[in-house]
Amino acid sequence: MPVEEEAPPRWPSRVTVCEVGPRDGLQNEKAVLTLEQKVELIDRISAAGAKIIEVGSFVNPKAVPRMADTDEVARRIKRLDGVEYRVLVFNLRGLERAEAVGLRKAKLTVSASRTHSIKNAGKPPEEAVKAFADCAEYAASKGITLSGAIPTSFGCNFEGRIPIEQVLSVVASFIEIGVRELSLSDTTGMANPRQVYEYSRMVRETYPDITWNLHFHNTRGMGLANVVAGMLAGVDRFDAGFAGLGGCPFVPNAAGNIATEDLLHMCQEMGVQTDYDLDEVISIARYARDLVGHDTDSFILRAGRNSDLVGSRDEAPKN
Amino acid sequence: MPVEEEAPPRWPSRVTVCEVGPRDGLQNEKAVLTLEQKVELIDRISAAGAKIIEVGSFVNPKAVPRMADTDEVARRIKRLDGVEYRVLVFNLRGLERAEAVGLRKAKLTVSASRTHSIKNAGKPPEEAVKAFADCAEYAASKGITLSGAIPTSFGCNFEGRIPIEQVLSVVASFIEIGVRELSLSDTTGMANPRQVYEYSRMVRETYPDITWNLHFHNTRGMGLANVVAGMLAGVDRFDAGFAGLGGCPFVPNAAGNIATEDLLHMCQEMGVQTDYDLDEVISIARYARDLVGHDTDSFILRAGRNSDLVGSRDEAPKN
Repeated sequence: MPVEEEAPPRWPSRVTVCEVGPRDGLQNEKAVLTLEQKVELIDRISAAGAKIIEVGSFVNPKAVPRMADTDEVARRIKRLDGVEYRVLVFNLRGLERAEAVGLRKAKLTVSASRTHSIKNAGKPPEEAVKAFADCAEYAASKGITLSGAIPTSFGCNFEGRIPIEQVLSVVASFIEIGVRELSLSDTTGMANPRQVYEYSRMVRETYPDITWNLHFHNTRGMGLANVVAGMLAGVDRFDAGFAGLGGCPFVPNAAGNIATEDLLHMCQEMGVQTDYDLDEVISIARYARDLVGHDTDSFILRAGRNSDLVGSRDEAPKN
Repeated sequence: MPVEEEAPPRWPSRVTVCEVGPRDGLQNEKAVLTLEQKVELIDRISAAGAKIIEVGSFVNPKAVPRMADTDEVARRIKRLDGVEYRVLVFNLRGLERAEAVGLRKAKLTVSASRTHSIKNAGKPPEEAVKAFADCAEYAASKGITLSGAIPTSFGCNFEGRIPIEQVLSVVASFIEIGVRELSLSDTTGMANPRQVYEYSRMVRETYPDITWNLHFHNTRGMGLANVVAGMLAGVDRFDAGFAGLGGCPFVPNAAGNIATEDLLHMCQEMGVQTDYDLDEVISIARYARDLVGHDTDSFILRAGRNSDLVGSRDEAPKN
């Protein structure tokens, strides 16, 4: 095959890794962590270099009992300068709770899939976003920053692949109510690298002034490949969760969020700065794994870093 | 961040996936497969669309007892037109055994790492390649195609990262003795996507007439990301092993070869042709997993394909 003349890819010099483990990682775990354990995890991850941490969710405690103590978690955590402590909210009441505990950042969620949005929120995605107009107004009046997450941006368990036009329609709705930071989310692990590249380029080209984030689960092994595709499309914010907790809501025992330590290790090997102390993140991930009491989908916890291997054994591989 | 003007990546329309499970996957398994089971796996994978299959290894049976029946495996498998049945050989005697059982393709292995090559083969890599000159001569006289695999092309457990200059030196040695098909191999799972892109471009630009192959293990979760990087650098041949068997020779319980079914699923989702019947490959992988008697690092065996999920559950994900 002839070698094409083409410009090499532009790797980012730096990316922001948002830690979602305290929320997306823990919300579906069987283990019940104590308030102190949650606070310890969050305080350790902020000290290790996280700049954005999703600390919990103001959701109906009957629906998600693991998040019932989010107010108290938010009250107790150390607030480091320059770190955004973000909480998931579903209505104005949730946003008021965020404000009451001094959180300055909240995330709204509206699915890109029409079917999924109707089943989940009782209305199509564009209307679900419009229903958040009161939140946007409240946030603006209180100086709270809102971000918008758009799950099923790539694929939906009801509709299959979601067309980019549908994603752009939900994006436009979010921008309409004043949200300036958006995440294309792949909770079901259906995104592939080509699609991630194409969708990321399209949203960035259409809305270059929006801060774009990508959220991948490693359900089908493509998590880090999708990050690479996102990097090449110019996105520089990625969610990840310590120890790779989180699972897939539709597949029992499936892999969860891409593991923070796996993503940071890849970035380090690629020469992409992240501001994290990887040793400490690995230690936190190991602690989180011990707390939930089962093995998790973290490659680095299993295999160690590249640098752990070098010189470690007096043997030779055979191919 | 401004959106750069740049050409979109060129995804390949088609890639060749080489099945290495019968050799790299099974050679370190505790389970002893019968001759019949090995033949069945190989015959099923060729019928499922594999165009290159590594059927075994002519190695000292004391060193790798699982490969002791490779002659008999090679005699019994069905030979489909257009399928290359490849065997790993370590010397002229091994190549003569390949010829005796009618195999038309053999693979030589020389590590890129000087330390590793000296420990493994008793000589530096360039000399180890030269020592295969008798094999190259014999292969040419018998019409057998040789390929060369270069493990530790990206990283070595003794030397850490291997400079591209060192890889190119080993490549040049292989070309010198007449080998026209080469594989950069990452058995230790230390390669990262940026390095894979850079090394792949460099070898392709330096030697555009060589057929290039990449071999990744998923030890640190970067397996499919590295494939994507290789694709973007213009490589269109990738090794993979059914069920993701294989492990890492230095890390107990580490993930092995990228799973054939995971790679094929990603390709299918990306619109990259592979000529495989994915349903049948998943069935083969499940069978291989049952034969070895333990869970394996296959995401698709755990989570199913994207298409399995759609419409499968009457629930909605929460982000």
